Amino acid sequence: MSPGSSSREREAFRTLLEAVRRRVDDRLPTWLAPKVEAANAVSAEVGAVAEAVTALALRGGKRMRPALLAAAYDAFGGGDVAAVELPMVAIELLQVYLLVHDDWMDDDDVRRGGPTVHVALRARFGSKSLGDAAAILAGDLASGFAQDALFATPLPADRVLRAARAYATLQEEVVCGQLAEMQAATLVRSPAPTVETIHALKTASYTVTGPLAMGALLAGADDTAAARLGRFGRPLGVAFQLRDDLLGTFGDPSATGKPVGNDIRQGKRTALVAEMRGDSKAEALLAKVLGRTDATDADVAEVVCAMETTGARARVEARVNELVEEARRGLQALALPDGPARDALYGAAWALAARST
Amino acid sequence: MSPGSSSREREAFRTLLEAVRRRVDDRLPTWLAPKVEAANAVSAEVGAVAEAVTALALRGGKRMRPALLAAAYDAFGGGDVAAVELPMVAIELLQVYLLVHDDWMDDDDVRRGGPTVHVALRARFGSKSLGDAAAILAGDLASGFAQDALFATPLPADRVLRAARAYATLQEEVVCGQLAEMQAATLVRSPAPTVETIHALKTASYTVTGPLAMGALLAGADDTAAARLGRFGRPLGVAFQLRDDLLGTFGDPSATGKPVGNDIRQGKRTALVAEMRGDSKAEALLAKVLGRTDATDADVAEVVCAMETTGARARVEARVNELVEEARRGLQALALPDGPARDALYGAAWALAARST
Repeated sequence: MSPGSSSREREAFRTLLEAVRRRVDDRLPTWLAPKVEAANAVSAEVGAVAEAVTALALRGGKRMRPALLAAAYDAFGGGDVAAVELPMVAIELLQVYLLVHDDWMDDDDVRRGGPTVHVALRARFGSKSLGDAAAILAGDLASGFAQDALFATPLPADRVLRAARAYATLQEEVVCGQLAEMQAATLVRSPAPTVETIHALKTASYTVTGPLAMGALLAGADDTAAARLGRFGRPLGVAFQLRDDLLGTFGDPSATGKPVGNDIRQGKRTALVAEMRGDSKAEALLAKVLGRTDATDADVAEVVCAMETTGARARVEARVNELVEEARRGLQALALPDGPARDALYGAAWALAARST
Repeated sequence: MSPGSSSREREAFRTLLEAVRRRVDDRLPTWLAPKVEAANAVSAEVGAVAEAVTALALRGGKRMRPALLAAAYDAFGGGDVAAVELPMVAIELLQVYLLVHDDWMDDDDVRRGGPTVHVALRARFGSKSLGDAAAILAGDLASGFAQDALFATPLPADRVLRAARAYATLQEEVVCGQLAEMQAATLVRSPAPTVETIHALKTASYTVTGPLAMGALLAGADDTAAARLGRFGRPLGVAFQLRDDLLGTFGDPSATGKPVGNDIRQGKRTALVAEMRGDSKAEALLAKVLGRTDATDADVAEVVCAMETTGARARVEARVNELVEEARRGLQALALPDGPARDALYGAAWALAARST
């Protein structure tokens, strides 16, 4: 899509992503095995919670976040990415922690093709309230596992510690973003933040800017350089979430795993919805359908149609392109040395913003 | 109580605790103010969640945990405890994180003389489900604030990083302990861990062994020395929780803030309950009353009486003394240099195990 993205760049990111995926899929189970063993030594029930965390962590995900961390580490001169295997594991376990709590809040049943952790633990503990409590603790446990992985990174302590501060910051951001999203979806009290502010906090932070900053800091970059990387990461992270908004309604359900109309029935305040504001007919339609879990397929189809006719979809697509260009300019300004690592970062911009799943 | 505890030692800990309390009470609000400001910049609702975290953090607590961290730091030659102000803030914010999630799980309404965070946020968001979701996120936010404080410690990076690993470990332990306690209180499936195992994981970890290890590591102690400190901290942490069990039933309600019979009506598997096992009459009584929120005062009085007549109370008191002696021997084996810091650690054993609130 982006004219600036060459096939060499895309290939560089694909190659990196593949290598990272193998590494993470190897390291995650060996990192978690002694943790599960320790939990099982307490009792079989405690072990079951650690196992639920492990099952979700191993059930995949694209491993985009660790790939971005690795790309930044390499581009900032860190060298062999074997040294950042544990931070990559940490960022995946951080995601598990966030997903477990998020799925419970959204009352979602399925995640990565299996039951969500609270659903699995309700069954295991034979009770909704016990399963829910165990799920919150499962998320907290994953957070502990993630921190331990990050702190065990075999690199100079000052680098690891600066990466840890970036890690703390991204957690604060993502939680504020989740709260802001909840507010936007449900409350009318104070003015809600804009969709792009929410996307920047909730998604860009832990998906793009956080992993990039951590990779750069682990390679020995100073805080200023890591902050400048945000001019690439922030627009890219927002573009990533806008693509998610688009795929939620216009993507191929068999590829995305999300049924058409899911976002609409759940009442998500996506960029598509925001772009329909100001059109009185579209607003009336939204008022009738958005957030109605019992909306008919015809209702949903009418909303989807209005997203086309009002130009909302086209405006969001245009905004994605704009943000990708902004990200590319931000990357250019860093004047990184030529090579596969820099190519992979350019390629990441394409992969995150133009993906179809 | 403990014959080995001199008034000089008790006084040393009291002096330290007072100094730490002033320090923590000064530093916590200045650490949190910019965090609250950042949250308010997102929206007033997000700000309200950061404010709920701050309110609970500032509403007190005895600041025992930071005092133990400071005592270990000083005893291991760290020098002026001003350097560990931020780790002390971190350990208090970690407790806020754990309390927020724990109070939601236990459905408790009051904490430190004010509403629990989920109760406050249900009111603020005008909905139980939104308030509960916001409370889980409030806990997660406190965890981010705590990590950031720890990582910002102005001490050599390798020391801070080793303390951070101890911090990750204590989180894993406390979560496993909470799960084990939940299992013991509600499930009969697999054999539940013993009361002392649960106490060691759930309470000793983040109350005593974790703060002590962090203080020692921040002072430059190696992992072996920090681990040997566990021979002091672990029995002391268990004694602390056994004292809590005793105070929950035999303490002065006006001092502890807990109504008599609360533990019994909530069905807590305290050491007192465990010590009644094997006596068939007492077991029958427990089966009838324990965990019945509607138990009459007469029922509760009968259980309390049985705790006396079966000797359960006396056995738990004896066990506290035994554990304190074990802790003192563990401390002796460390052969720390004479001085107020070592005295304060001996004094802490008294303060934690013989307290009346």
